[in-house]
Amino acid sequence: MTIKAVVFDAYGTLYDIQSVAAVTEQAFPGYGEIVTQVWRIKQLEYTWLRSLMRRYQDFSVITRDSLSYTLRCLGLKSDPVAFERIMDKYLHLDLYPDATAALAAMKDRKLAILSNGSTAMLDALVHNSGLGRLLDATISIDSRKIFKPSPDAYSLIESVLGVLPAQVLFVSSNPWDACGAKAFGLNVAWIERVTPEAMALACARSELVAPLTMFKAIRTQMDELGLEPDYRIHALSELPGLVASHESRT
Amino acid sequence: MTIKAVVFDAYGTLYDIQSVAAVTEQAFPGYGEIVTQVWRIKQLEYTWLRSLMRRYQDFSVITRDSLSYTLRCLGLKSDPVAFERIMDKYLHLDLYPDATAALAAMKDRKLAILSNGSTAMLDALVHNSGLGRLLDATISIDSRKIFKPSPDAYSLIESVLGVLPAQVLFVSSNPWDACGAKAFGLNVAWIERVTPEAMALACARSELVAPLTMFKAIRTQMDELGLEPDYRIHALSELPGLVASHESRT
Repeated sequence: MTIKAVVFDAYGTLYDIQSVAAVTEQAFPGYGEIVTQVWRIKQLEYTWLRSLMRRYQDFSVITRDSLSYTLRCLGLKSDPVAFERIMDKYLHLDLYPDATAALAAMKDRKLAILSNGSTAMLDALVHNSGLGRLLDATISIDSRKIFKPSPDAYSLIESVLGVLPAQVLFVSSNPWDACGAKAFGLNVAWIERVTPEAMALACARSELVAPLTMFKAIRTQMDELGLEPDYRIHALSELPGLVASHESRT
Repeated sequence: MTIKAVVFDAYGTLYDIQSVAAVTEQAFPGYGEIVTQVWRIKQLEYTWLRSLMRRYQDFSVITRDSLSYTLRCLGLKSDPVAFERIMDKYLHLDLYPDATAALAAMKDRKLAILSNGSTAMLDALVHNSGLGRLLDATISIDSRKIFKPSPDAYSLIESVLGVLPAQVLFVSSNPWDACGAKAFGLNVAWIERVTPEAMALACARSELVAPLTMFKAIRTQMDELGLEPDYRIHALSELPGLVASHESRT
């Protein structure tokens, strides 16, 4: 079947959230990486917990709260200026280097973002990275007041773009997001940025097991949720070829 | 108002889930603690993700899947016998040393467990630990097919025990669970087993930041979810006094 729309997750998929580590390292020397990793774990936990508790707050609130939590746990005191500088980086995340070219090569389809980010955060991010000219829509789950992987979030794609789930290729590097999209019925390409072999090697190499290695594992390795993405790729640059071959096969 | 029922979370609250670490260490020397910590993080993630995806599986399936994930990430190969030995420990977790006496001292109220565990897991755990004679009910969320912190899970207390939320004291050491119970409208005592001071000290002491310290922080420190438990205690032994003073005050 024809892929009429290619829809991307934002954080970790098009945009490198690890690019905040330089800013957190500057604010808290020696703690940049650990702050970044714990922050991300808690940010995601809070999206799921608030969704289940029916206490929705938008992603900017959750991002602030999870950063506060992280600094408190680590016993780090931050002045408001440093805090805001870290938060601001979330509006200026680096694009993965192959993102723009991959999108440009698929401009004959509808291209969109579907993200947990609030409308204001996503608009700023897309504007600051110059991706706006390539996207047909930037869809925030904010209007549904529930986060991915709820089906209510993924159903926004059809509502906004007018394409059926079977006509969509959804792209995410987040394992739980790839599983959620698959459960909903989208075609899914999961970006495996760290192979299991590389991960096992990193674990075996470290004396004990390095903390950052395990924090990265938790966010990069495919989850055991009884679901499999349709495609495993290693970079955004593989997408144009994948879309063409998907159509010739189905 | 009178507290007619004291309802406990099971895993981490009455039962020490860190007591699996000895078994995982035996199976995987040098990896016992990290396996235990990552396993727990993923076990919880899977309860929330499956609830949101509407792909419920009971807690025994999730506990197996999250252990499989953990071993795969760490590049650890397990034979089926070692795997089953670890899983079996979940049915024989150690009670916290003050659990039995605390429950016995409140036997004039209804006493119950409300847990994510499956009925079979909880029944085995309660039987093996000899807690059955003190409990009026062992309530699994299994009948609702959605995990805590969904309101549908907490509402089982009223359905099973016939007491109103305002007549219940809910006890949990899990910060997200304490918040979920509070959001639902129960009176909540949160067991803070690791103080922020102790946590900050542990972080400051470690050269980098020790991995296990941060994994523990993620599970023990109060979350930033816009909710506060009514009581912070440090051990189950404080509960009988707390119940009495709550009633004299309200």
